[in-house]
Amino acid sequence: MNGWDALGARAVRRCDLMGAPPYSEEADQLVRRFLTPAHDAALETLGEWMSAAGMSVRRDAAANLIGRYEATTPGAPALMIGSHIDTVRNGGRYDGALGVMLGIDCVEALALAGRRLDFAIEVIAFGDEEGSRFPAAMACSRAVAGTVDPAVLSMRDPEGVSLGEALAGFAGHDGVPITEAARAPSEVLAFLEAHIEQGPVLEAEGLALGVVTAIAAQKRFQVRLTGTAGHAGTTPMGLRRDPAPAAAEAILAVERLCAGGRDGLVGTVGRIAARPGAANVIPGAVEFTLDIRAETSPTRDAAAEAIISEIKAVAERRGLGLSIELLQDLPASPCDPALTQLLEDAVRAVGVTPRRLPSGAGHDAMVMADLCPTAMLFIRCEGGVSHNPAEAVDPADAALAARAMLAFIDALDLKQQGGERP
Amino acid sequence: MNGWDALGARAVRRCDLMGAPPYSEEADQLVRRFLTPAHDAALETLGEWMSAAGMSVRRDAAANLIGRYEATTPGAPALMIGSHIDTVRNGGRYDGALGVMLGIDCVEALALAGRRLDFAIEVIAFGDEEGSRFPAAMACSRAVAGTVDPAVLSMRDPEGVSLGEALAGFAGHDGVPITEAARAPSEVLAFLEAHIEQGPVLEAEGLALGVVTAIAAQKRFQVRLTGTAGHAGTTPMGLRRDPAPAAAEAILAVERLCAGGRDGLVGTVGRIAARPGAANVIPGAVEFTLDIRAETSPTRDAAAEAIISEIKAVAERRGLGLSIELLQDLPASPCDPALTQLLEDAVRAVGVTPRRLPSGAGHDAMVMADLCPTAMLFIRCEGGVSHNPAEAVDPADAALAARAMLAFIDALDLKQQGGERP
Repeated sequence: MNGWDALGARAVRRCDLMGAPPYSEEADQLVRRFLTPAHDAALETLGEWMSAAGMSVRRDAAANLIGRYEATTPGAPALMIGSHIDTVRNGGRYDGALGVMLGIDCVEALALAGRRLDFAIEVIAFGDEEGSRFPAAMACSRAVAGTVDPAVLSMRDPEGVSLGEALAGFAGHDGVPITEAARAPSEVLAFLEAHIEQGPVLEAEGLALGVVTAIAAQKRFQVRLTGTAGHAGTTPMGLRRDPAPAAAEAILAVERLCAGGRDGLVGTVGRIAARPGAANVIPGAVEFTLDIRAETSPTRDAAAEAIISEIKAVAERRGLGLSIELLQDLPASPCDPALTQLLEDAVRAVGVTPRRLPSGAGHDAMVMADLCPTAMLFIRCEGGVSHNPAEAVDPADAALAARAMLAFIDALDLKQQGGERP
Repeated sequence: MNGWDALGARAVRRCDLMGAPPYSEEADQLVRRFLTPAHDAALETLGEWMSAAGMSVRRDAAANLIGRYEATTPGAPALMIGSHIDTVRNGGRYDGALGVMLGIDCVEALALAGRRLDFAIEVIAFGDEEGSRFPAAMACSRAVAGTVDPAVLSMRDPEGVSLGEALAGFAGHDGVPITEAARAPSEVLAFLEAHIEQGPVLEAEGLALGVVTAIAAQKRFQVRLTGTAGHAGTTPMGLRRDPAPAAAEAILAVERLCAGGRDGLVGTVGRIAARPGAANVIPGAVEFTLDIRAETSPTRDAAAEAIISEIKAVAERRGLGLSIELLQDLPASPCDPALTQLLEDAVRAVGVTPRRLPSGAGHDAMVMADLCPTAMLFIRCEGGVSHNPAEAVDPADAALAARAMLAFIDALDLKQQGGERP
């Protein structure tokens, strides 16, 4: 096993270690929510690993852990590398955490080689990305990017504790306002996030790594088709106004109009319910959700329009009522083109055929894009499974990721010496 | 307004009167469950109306109210006419009750004309058809038909009171076992039930009355299609094993394979659920119910087989798991052909084009068929709506029903005089 393989295996092992108490709130499943003792224990140990790798360590006003590997010129802007350290309930060990471990590995490799760069490297472990304790996701990267809404401080967890109260009581928190975690754009050169794919594309194509082009644009709708409820036994087929077959046509239209997946287009009907929902009653209404995502907003919007226009036609043809409510509209958040090219070159340099793909899920990088240019590396995960104890990563893939990240750092260093800002 | 119109209007008015306390357990909605004070109050008043119409009145061992209009020869077998007096929660005023009121009208018309027949007429108000208090429907007609399972006595209502306890405490109940309500076949010539259609066929065809051929054969299934749950954003269309479009194809197959409605064939998907059922998760499973009914078991079974074979083909083509569980299998219960012909002639005699149709819902007549030949008359109801406060019947239709029932009685009388047993 060469040095990189050892580091990759160690990154995976460190995630595994943090899959159990004291780094998990529960013994029989992994749950590490924001500002819990499990979160504190994780930061404590991560801080030791960061120190050992040659970084100075601090917790910021949003309970993020930051390890800084100083530049040749102290105080120079930093390349930030990181991801989140919190998990969903009964989550996997690598979602978020692996990106933090790989950041530490990169710094350790530089330190072992005795190299300092024109820019600093800061490895950051964001405290809250999942929103699994308070109903506010990505509060911590928003704090760093300077876009956090202080109203999140009054959000309460299921036990009635507010985010502000929990933050004030968190170990190492010095009582300064959460907004103090904001960084000035002049302090941050770029943000690099490595994260498991949480999808099956890389595995299907036999690739260890992927280069993220953008966080997908997303639209989510609630659709309701209304007809006339009736007795399943006494209403002949010809006299029905049944919304169930109409919903069926709509679901097939989603599948058909998103087929091909141009620009990462996907369409999903994840929730379906017939009302009143009894075996012997023709539904009076059928409700379903419609989630549409694509790499670009125009592709997403064209698909959404085509689907909605088809659902309208179905409703009209069948004489049904229709309401469509827009629940969510997130624009695409593209990664920085120049950094993405650097990352693609770095992936090629470690022997992996570069594969660009959008991220269908949201990530801290999307938030950090408000502060600085971003790049994002995907790591293959088994079966595309995530948010699940079965989440698994091959240590060899983690090693390739660390090598690609260091190649990216080298390229960025070269570029900086050329005086260019990415 | 002639005499019949007045009787029809009175039958409807009597149902309306019983739509409120003391004949309803609640003031803001109609609910009259078995063995409640509301049930007792209804029987008390019905008994007065039966007496006034010339009947002797008693409550039997199953809390059914029976009014007997004696034959020319006392003790002769009886034509029983009736339906149920209980309601569902927030039910309509005519479901069941109207059939009892019309039976009283028929007897009153005979008595006013000073006519007695070779057979007695017994008007019966069954106490429980809906099963809205105890989880046993049609316990009362089963008791009369001699097919009640004494185990129903230990069934409990939501308050923990057993049917046996409630029955023993019911006014007028003399403590004899429920099985004592059973009638000997030699005592009962036939059973005639008039009931609102609870469906839209008669209204759609502009007919006040319909002749029921059979209680439909019914099969009910629970279908489960299983694929692979996944993230709605990260799983490309081509890598999905999504059971939702498969369920959609199945629902459309039900509609297509039941279209035309030969032999009263109907197929309904009344309950649909995607699991886990989140907007951002591709379902791992979709479950739905399938209810198939037809006038004859072979028609029902052929449709069920065709539908299931198509669902199997869909699951196979899409690489999905499939389980199909048979929840219910009720054979068709045909009405007596000779009596049905008499009833059809009677309907024609009052100027209504005879329309034969199956009953998709169950009725006491289905149970009484174990004791004697049965016939069943449907009365048009507004919009086919039932089990709903909006249930409505045109008094003119009720008058036509009473006239047709009396014509049926006349024809049966003629037939009996000819020595035929129907």
